[in-house]
Amino acid sequence: MPTDSKKLDELCINTIRILSADAVQNANSGHPGMPMGAAAMAYTLWSRYLKHNPADPQWFDRDRFVLSAGHGSMLLYSLLHLTGYDLPLSEIKRFRQLGSKTPGHPERGLTPGVEVSTGPLGQGFSNGVGMAIAHNFLAARFNRPGHDIIDHYIYSICGDGDLMEGITQEAASLAGHLKLGKLIYLYDHNYISLAGQTSLCFTEDVQKRFDAYEWHTRTVEDGNSIEEVAAAIEEAQKDPRPSLILVRTHIGYGSPHKHDSYTVHGSPLGEEELAETKKALGWPTTDKFFIPEEALAKFREALPKGASTQAAWKAKMDAYRAAFPAEYAELESMIAGRLPDGWDADLPKWKLTDKAIATRVAGGQAINAVAKRVTNLIGGSADLNPSTETALKGLGDFQPPDTNGQNVQGAVGGVWSYAGRNVAFGVREHAMGAAVNGMAAHGGVHPFSATFLVFSDYMKPSIRLGALSDLKSIYIFTHDSIGVGEDGPTHEPVEQLAGLRAIPGLIVIRPADPNETSEAYRFAIPHDGPVLLALTRQNVPHVSENPQVAKGAYILRDTEGTPDVILIGTGSEVGLCVSAHDKLKAYGVKARVVSMPSWELFGMQDAAYREQVLPKAIRKRVCVEAESPFGWERWAGDEGAIIGLNRYGLSAPGAEVMKYLGFTVERVTATALRVLGREKEAAEVEPVQGGETAVKPTSPEEGHS
Amino acid sequence: MPTDSKKLDELCINTIRILSADAVQNANSGHPGMPMGAAAMAYTLWSRYLKHNPADPQWFDRDRFVLSAGHGSMLLYSLLHLTGYDLPLSEIKRFRQLGSKTPGHPERGLTPGVEVSTGPLGQGFSNGVGMAIAHNFLAARFNRPGHDIIDHYIYSICGDGDLMEGITQEAASLAGHLKLGKLIYLYDHNYISLAGQTSLCFTEDVQKRFDAYEWHTRTVEDGNSIEEVAAAIEEAQKDPRPSLILVRTHIGYGSPHKHDSYTVHGSPLGEEELAETKKALGWPTTDKFFIPEEALAKFREALPKGASTQAAWKAKMDAYRAAFPAEYAELESMIAGRLPDGWDADLPKWKLTDKAIATRVAGGQAINAVAKRVTNLIGGSADLNPSTETALKGLGDFQPPDTNGQNVQGAVGGVWSYAGRNVAFGVREHAMGAAVNGMAAHGGVHPFSATFLVFSDYMKPSIRLGALSDLKSIYIFTHDSIGVGEDGPTHEPVEQLAGLRAIPGLIVIRPADPNETSEAYRFAIPHDGPVLLALTRQNVPHVSENPQVAKGAYILRDTEGTPDVILIGTGSEVGLCVSAHDKLKAYGVKARVVSMPSWELFGMQDAAYREQVLPKAIRKRVCVEAESPFGWERWAGDEGAIIGLNRYGLSAPGAEVMKYLGFTVERVTATALRVLGREKEAAEVEPVQGGETAVKPTSPEEGHS
Repeated sequence: MPTDSKKLDELCINTIRILSADAVQNANSGHPGMPMGAAAMAYTLWSRYLKHNPADPQWFDRDRFVLSAGHGSMLLYSLLHLTGYDLPLSEIKRFRQLGSKTPGHPERGLTPGVEVSTGPLGQGFSNGVGMAIAHNFLAARFNRPGHDIIDHYIYSICGDGDLMEGITQEAASLAGHLKLGKLIYLYDHNYISLAGQTSLCFTEDVQKRFDAYEWHTRTVEDGNSIEEVAAAIEEAQKDPRPSLILVRTHIGYGSPHKHDSYTVHGSPLGEEELAETKKALGWPTTDKFFIPEEALAKFREALPKGASTQAAWKAKMDAYRAAFPAEYAELESMIAGRLPDGWDADLPKWKLTDKAIATRVAGGQAINAVAKRVTNLIGGSADLNPSTETALKGLGDFQPPDTNGQNVQGAVGGVWSYAGRNVAFGVREHAMGAAVNGMAAHGGVHPFSATFLVFSDYMKPSIRLGALSDLKSIYIFTHDSIGVGEDGPTHEPVEQLAGLRAIPGLIVIRPADPNETSEAYRFAIPHDGPVLLALTRQNVPHVSENPQVAKGAYILRDTEGTPDVILIGTGSEVGLCVSAHDKLKAYGVKARVVSMPSWELFGMQDAAYREQVLPKAIRKRVCVEAESPFGWERWAGDEGAIIGLNRYGLSAPGAEVMKYLGFTVERVTATALRVLGREKEAAEVEPVQGGETAVKPTSPEEGHS
Repeated sequence: MPTDSKKLDELCINTIRILSADAVQNANSGHPGMPMGAAAMAYTLWSRYLKHNPADPQWFDRDRFVLSAGHGSMLLYSLLHLTGYDLPLSEIKRFRQLGSKTPGHPERGLTPGVEVSTGPLGQGFSNGVGMAIAHNFLAARFNRPGHDIIDHYIYSICGDGDLMEGITQEAASLAGHLKLGKLIYLYDHNYISLAGQTSLCFTEDVQKRFDAYEWHTRTVEDGNSIEEVAAAIEEAQKDPRPSLILVRTHIGYGSPHKHDSYTVHGSPLGEEELAETKKALGWPTTDKFFIPEEALAKFREALPKGASTQAAWKAKMDAYRAAFPAEYAELESMIAGRLPDGWDADLPKWKLTDKAIATRVAGGQAINAVAKRVTNLIGGSADLNPSTETALKGLGDFQPPDTNGQNVQGAVGGVWSYAGRNVAFGVREHAMGAAVNGMAAHGGVHPFSATFLVFSDYMKPSIRLGALSDLKSIYIFTHDSIGVGEDGPTHEPVEQLAGLRAIPGLIVIRPADPNETSEAYRFAIPHDGPVLLALTRQNVPHVSENPQVAKGAYILRDTEGTPDVILIGTGSEVGLCVSAHDKLKAYGVKARVVSMPSWELFGMQDAAYREQVLPKAIRKRVCVEAESPFGWERWAGDEGAIIGLNRYGLSAPGAEVMKYLGFTVERVTATALRVLGREKEAAEVEPVQGGETAVKPTSPEEGHS
């Protein structure tokens, strides 16, 4: 048994290694190599530097720890259990089992102390950048001389896979530009990835690359040396730049036959090798899940230490409250995620007779109206401010204050500092998505992102993780259809909406007109989860006066008595349905128009409301959306028709593309007549069926194509 | 009029600038700034170095030119028209108009001389890396001393946006590792992006970053200096590493009031400024589309020069044929895209009684069987060879030959050289997708990629471009459902298949068992377009003996007389349908089982076949797929049910996850009974409806949720 602190440290480090390896072996599944290799640096960080209170994982001024290399989840679970989080050993024993709090990869919301869900590589790394943005914003906004009430680091352990992923290039370049000095990342540099040695495919000079991003970088030659790791962390804390510490580690350290081998990356050691590992590390027993008492006691020092650190912060907050009561109240409200009273009072409204505008323009007015009152609404676009209309006018640029913001083209105006509300993410959609998620996970801010809908593809992995983690992110996408026009098929979304609607937990809203856009913001801002907005590039007519966006779908135009046919549209195509509704009157057809801005929200309404809007008995339906028809059968049913797109768009003025591809009042009218079996009149309305619209036939097996 | 060559060069450069600005102005839409700023370097490259024959854009040994900054399309169209490609001035005048050959962003297949579709930033850059892989493979395979028959460069012009995107980090790091010296990229370094100055968000040291990738880098201070650009290109040609030339340019060069401003990035100059630009550049007229005769004559020198260069190559090929007739025949066949006779003769077959295996394992056997005969099948995984089973065993590692391949963990075996058939893409899914597309676009090879299905999200932008461009890429995805198990929800695809099936032009195949997997390869290899395979991690029973994969869906089990119900499944869930089919017999229910590996292929069959498999009259249907039910209404119809997932997966052993989430024979059987109105018997079969499966109710408006 150890008698001095060095030996105790060693015992603690081996406790992490063995506990992790035991759990993986017990599950017969998982990644033992990373926890074994990274145990020493993780222990150094957690025992000496990490500011946290295991008894209160939500304490706001805690340091954030992000395990970007999420496959090494047992490293984190070991630390959480050992330092006294509410994660008992019974859960470690149920690693990777049904209903446990120790899933294969860390999941936010499931396990106390897990800040973000990681596993898909590069996401955690980039979430951390968002956390640092949130930190610096709140610190700039609320800290006062002598009152550093927001002051914490964002630590991460990342691996080779993280650094190979493009998203980290985006996030690191942004973090370097923004001088996010609170970031301290430990790179688990072990030359081994899942499939082999990194010499197979990853031989770049990582340190030089991060130097190029203006990060502070430093190597640690012996990743098992607490002192070396400690010195590097302390240096990083002092450096005003984000820090990457390249720590030379050995995957599977302690395993006599598998260390430094890719075979220990993603598979259990095997009982025999595990026993030999215990022997090699001088472990007292081969019993599973043995935790030496001295080690546990040492780890559990985190509890009293955390309590006193948090208490000291509480005292600082009390002093702050006394000195700055208004600021305290505002900050407290932000931390709690409350909106100010009347936050939505300025949301714009339009009359039907107003001049047509694009929903992106309406969205710009709406978000600016909200931003004035919701003072922690912060975000930006991927280098598309002039197009997405999402600049928060005059509310400042989120930029390092020591840089020169004078006369920079594209600056939004207002302060040029960390108190600025506009983040220039650059052409970095993927990192933007992950950063916005990280901001939401950090808390205290309402984050949003913006780019073109077609580039939602570049952000998809982050959008999914936002939805999986129930993060309060708002993803704004403009240029939402072939209405984009001249930029052509590479810039015209077709299948994106279908793919996004299929993401569990994500609310997708495609408003029909400016009033629906305003209402979309009224729903999105307080909604406790991710919301995605799809807005037009092109002008749309005003069609709604009292839109029911939060209900997902509602009757926009109706008829006396039972309708013959229901026209269902979203976004810019609702206007076509309204015009077709009028045109159909001349044919004695009673049409109802349903505007359906959100499938998900409509699906959540009670059966009575859904029946009221879309009565089962009315089987004749026409669905219209200038996107892929994929999935629309849900609303069209066997006797309905879908006007959609089974092809890519075209480069031409938007109105011409719309017309050529069949998104016309005539097409909608004629399709309604056809659905009603009035083929002859349909042919009158639309004598030549031009273009290449996919009008789905009335039985599902006919296929779209 | 110019009297010396320097003046003539200047006139030619201005011709590019003015023609581009005229076309953008005429379209009243587009990006004039980039062509005006990059005209000089593009002219230098095209007039002095680019090996091409405008009269034969398909000549195989041409240099490839990739305009990664695709928004500068008029630069490329100007060059194509001026050097004599089949792109008449009438098409330039129809820039961005319906049906023209000059769309907003370059589109492969539409315009002669356009190698790849670009616009979504970073894609072209990464396509080029794939082209260089294809080049080096073919060169290593076929060139012989004195017979450098494959010997061309891949040039690209890329911009700030390209370099901000993460995909270029991935592609550049890979290219540096692979020492792809044929890449010569010109970085249009103008400090301006769409939304403002790059000082807003992009201040990293790009040159140092590329140095870190082991690229050869060099700056050109004056991007308008032909001599400086020329010297840099010549240096790059000599360097064995990939080259990035950072060329300082001025966006909108020539425009008195808009140069160096983001306002000229994506908007026409305006008539007045255009006139002033012409004046400032000493242009003889304000007439639109004026092309000076001397300039045109100079540009058109490309035609005789191209013809003679191509003829010289033809002579080399003749000599090669004489010296190496077998190799010549093989290469010629590869260039033509022909498959060897009997290419599929070794595709494995299994008996129903064989031991169950995963379809990823079957896929591994199938692709290896093909690879032996299809000697230009080349590809790899994103660091997942041990999991995706896609290693081409013993067929060598595609690696720079001067590196040391001895005892590298993870090496596939066989040669370690550019003749190797296994590309270790690293944890770089996005670049892998784009590289595979670039390999396909280059021609001469059959490329494939592989990773987990959930990470198709990371590749989505490239998959879309592959489909948009009709590239013959094979995207292999394993671990295709919650059957992944322990790795948990971050690694379990749910909504991915829906999103991918919605991509126009992409064929998605999810085989039910090993024989279907073999048949999927039989379809995919010769198919003239992109194909995506979704394969299981877990073992599946053998269910098919004579699968009709190419038809998309077929009757796998039937019944005497008219079926009461049709069970439709894909992939690992077909086995459940087969078992339920048997179980239903006990209840006197006549069930048909339809295996539907590909929605797209079934949609392409004629109406008679579709009616035969899924008769309209049989409305009682149960669709089973352990993925999002999104879109399945198409096949279920109003009276059918869908067993799918409206939530994320779980971390637990795969079989437990499947069971917990309701993918059981009991659930399928009971659902069939329910669809038939036999609620009581259904309750017998499945007394407790555990889990949280989404069983879609029988009318569409009920919603999934």
